[in-house]
Amino acid sequence: MANYVAFDAQRAIEYVNSLIDSKQCDFFIAGQNLSAYEFGDGNLNLVFRVSDEQNNSIILKQALPYARCVGESWSLTLDRARIEAQVLLNHGAICTEYTAKVLHYNHDYALTILEDLGSLQILRAAQNNAQQFPKLAEHVASYLSHTGFYNSDFYLAAQHKKALVKQFTNPELCQITEDLFFSDPYTEHERNNFPVQLAPQVKALRDNTVLKLEIAKLKANFLSNPQTLLHGDMHSGSIFVDTNTTKMIDPEFGFFGPVGFDIGSFIGNLLLNYCAQAGHIEEFVTRRNYQTHLLSCIVETYTLFEQHWLNFIDTKTVDASLSSKAYAQYFMKNVLQDAIGYCGAELIRRTIGLAHVVDIDSIADEATRLSVQKQILALGEQLILNAHTCETKDAFFSLLISQLN
Amino acid sequence: MANYVAFDAQRAIEYVNSLIDSKQCDFFIAGQNLSAYEFGDGNLNLVFRVSDEQNNSIILKQALPYARCVGESWSLTLDRARIEAQVLLNHGAICTEYTAKVLHYNHDYALTILEDLGSLQILRAAQNNAQQFPKLAEHVASYLSHTGFYNSDFYLAAQHKKALVKQFTNPELCQITEDLFFSDPYTEHERNNFPVQLAPQVKALRDNTVLKLEIAKLKANFLSNPQTLLHGDMHSGSIFVDTNTTKMIDPEFGFFGPVGFDIGSFIGNLLLNYCAQAGHIEEFVTRRNYQTHLLSCIVETYTLFEQHWLNFIDTKTVDASLSSKAYAQYFMKNVLQDAIGYCGAELIRRTIGLAHVVDIDSIADEATRLSVQKQILALGEQLILNAHTCETKDAFFSLLISQLN
Repeated sequence: MANYVAFDAQRAIEYVNSLIDSKQCDFFIAGQNLSAYEFGDGNLNLVFRVSDEQNNSIILKQALPYARCVGESWSLTLDRARIEAQVLLNHGAICTEYTAKVLHYNHDYALTILEDLGSLQILRAAQNNAQQFPKLAEHVASYLSHTGFYNSDFYLAAQHKKALVKQFTNPELCQITEDLFFSDPYTEHERNNFPVQLAPQVKALRDNTVLKLEIAKLKANFLSNPQTLLHGDMHSGSIFVDTNTTKMIDPEFGFFGPVGFDIGSFIGNLLLNYCAQAGHIEEFVTRRNYQTHLLSCIVETYTLFEQHWLNFIDTKTVDASLSSKAYAQYFMKNVLQDAIGYCGAELIRRTIGLAHVVDIDSIADEATRLSVQKQILALGEQLILNAHTCETKDAFFSLLISQLN
Repeated sequence: MANYVAFDAQRAIEYVNSLIDSKQCDFFIAGQNLSAYEFGDGNLNLVFRVSDEQNNSIILKQALPYARCVGESWSLTLDRARIEAQVLLNHGAICTEYTAKVLHYNHDYALTILEDLGSLQILRAAQNNAQQFPKLAEHVASYLSHTGFYNSDFYLAAQHKKALVKQFTNPELCQITEDLFFSDPYTEHERNNFPVQLAPQVKALRDNTVLKLEIAKLKANFLSNPQTLLHGDMHSGSIFVDTNTTKMIDPEFGFFGPVGFDIGSFIGNLLLNYCAQAGHIEEFVTRRNYQTHLLSCIVETYTLFEQHWLNFIDTKTVDASLSSKAYAQYFMKNVLQDAIGYCGAELIRRTIGLAHVVDIDSIADEATRLSVQKQILALGEQLILNAHTCETKDAFFSLLISQLN
C-alpha cells in the first residue's frame, strides 16, 4: 500500500473519473461533471457519495490508517478494507439480495466502491424513531443462515475452508472485539465508559466469578472456533432497511468465528433498543406495542434462522460425517447457547465499555437513562449466566420474556 | 519448488558436501569421504543416513510428492516438509529436550537435515519387544503440555497466535486424518482394511447412531478448534526412546487443533499395544505385568500432563480473561473428554481403517488376532460413548480399567 493517500472529495471524483475513462467501471457515463461529499460518521473510515449530473450515485469508502473516533494515535490496519470487500463479495455471491454490492476494490488505496444505499435508512436510526420493518427478521435470518451455512464445515470441502480461514484471518480487528467485548468491561480499563452511578453494578459484574467464567468461555470460543465467515459487526448500524429491503454493510470485522456471534449481536441490539424505548416513547401502550414488535422480531429472526440452518444441514450438507439429524440438533443447541451468551456480552459492553449505542446515550433524562442501563446490565448478566440452561429456542424466548417483564 | 528432484544416496552426499563446503552447516569437518544409505520405512518420505569417516552421522529426510505406501497415484504436497521442519523448530524452542533437532531445512528440495537418533529405538518396536521406559510418561507429558500451553490462547497474544495458525495451516495432511480417522471406518470405503470376520463388529459400529454422533463431534472439533500447535501424529512410531531419553519426530501432520488430540492418540497407541500383548507374551503373569506397566504409563502420562497444564494456566497465563481456576477446570475437563474420544477413534481406525499398527498385524495366530481386534473395537467404542461422562481423569482411568478387565 505504498501509494496510499487519504482522499478528499476532489480526489474521490478524480479517482472515479479515472475508472470511467479507463473503462474499468461503468457506473457512470463518461464525460460528465461529477460531484462528491464526505459524510462518514463511523469511526474508522472516510465515506464519500459521488454523483453524476443525473444524480446517479455511488459510495466510495476508504479505510483510514487509524481509528477516527480515538485519533491518529490508535493505528489500524488498512487490510480491513480488503477484508470488508472480500466478505461482501463472499456473502454477496451466496446471498445477493441482502448484501451491499461491491462495484470496485483498490488494494493500494484501501478503497471500495459500493452501490449507494442512501435511499434506505440505517436500522438503528429508524428504530430510535420507532419504525417497524415487517421483513427485517425474515431477511436477517436468511442472510445469516445462508452465509453461515455455505461457509461452514457442513458445506465446504475441508481444504477449501482452510484456505478461506487463512484469507479471512483478521487479527487487528478481532483484537478490538476481543478487548472491547470480553476484556475491558470486566476489568478497570481507561477505554471503559460509564457514569459513576453505575459503579456498584459494574463492581458486582466484576466480582461475579460465575459470570467471568462464562465470559472466558465466550472469549475462548471467539478466539478459536472458526465455524463460519461471520459479518463480525452485526449491530443495528450495519443494516440498511426500508419496508421491503434489507442490506448488510460494513463487515470489516469479518473473520471465521462461532456461528452464534452474529445472530447474538443482532438480537442484542434489538434488546438495547427495546430497553431504550423507556426513555423515548412516553405513552405506555405505544411503547409496549413497539417493544412487542421488537420481541416478535427477535423470536421470528431466531426461529427462521434455526429453521433455515436445520433445513440446510438436512438437505445440503456435503460432509457425510456431519449430516445426521442428531448432530444437527447438537450443533444448533450450541449455536443457540453461544448466541445467548454473545447477546448478553453485547448488552454489557455497549453499556459500560468504549462503544455505546445512541439508543441509550440519547435518553435525555438522566434517571431514566440510568434505570435503562441498569436493566440492560441485569439482562445481559442473566442471559450469560443462563445461556447453558437453554436447550431450545423456546427456553431462550421464555428467559427473555421473564427478564423483560 | 521448481528445482525439486527426489534424491538417491549419491545426491544426498553431494548435497551435504555442498552445505559443508559453503559453510552453511558444520555437522561434518570438510574434506571427508561421506557415505549414505536410504532406510525409510515410512509411507511418505525418503530417509537417508549420511555418515563421515569417524561415523558421525546425520539424517537427511526428503518428502516425496506422493504417498509411498499407496503409490504415485496418491499425490501429496511437499509443503509437509516445511510444516514438519517448522513444527520441530517451534516445539524445539519450547521443549528442546524432547524434540528432534533440525540442523538444516531446504524448501526447494522439501528436505530437512536432522540429528541422527539412530542410537535410540522407535517406541513401537520396543514395546512390541516388551521393553519398558521408566521416563517415557514424564517426558511425553512434559513435551505435550509445554508445546501445547505455549502455543495456546492462554499464552500467546491473539494476533501472534493467528499468524501461527496461518503458518501451520496444513490442509492436505489434515485431510488424510479427517478421512482415515473420522470418515472411512464408519462408511464403506475401499481404503478400509479389515478381515471379513470383523464384518459384524464393523456393521454394528456403523449402525450405532449414538457413536456416529460422537464421531461427528470429534471430527468437527478436529476441523475447527485451533487450540494449539499439535504434533498431529503422536503414535508410537513417532517417538524415539531409550532409558533416559525421549525424542519426538515426524510432526508433518502438525496444525492448530484441539489439545486432546495428541494425548488421546498417544494413549490410544499404548492401549493398542496393551491389547496386542495377548498375541505376543504367552506367559500370563509376564503379560499381565507388562500390561500393568502400560496402564501405569497411561495414568502417569495423563496425570502429569494435566498437572503441568493446570500449573501453566495458573502461573503463566497472559490473557487475564482466561486465567481463573474455574476456567482452567472447565478447559481441562474438555481436553480430557476430547482426549478420551480421540483415543477411542484411534483404536477403531487402526483396526479397520487403512493404516494398521504392527502391534496387531504381527500377531501370528489368526484367532488371537481377531479376538484382540474385537477387544480393541469394543474398547474404542466404549471410550467414545462414555467420554462425556468422565468429569475427571480418575473417571477416565476407572473406565479404562473396567473395560480392560
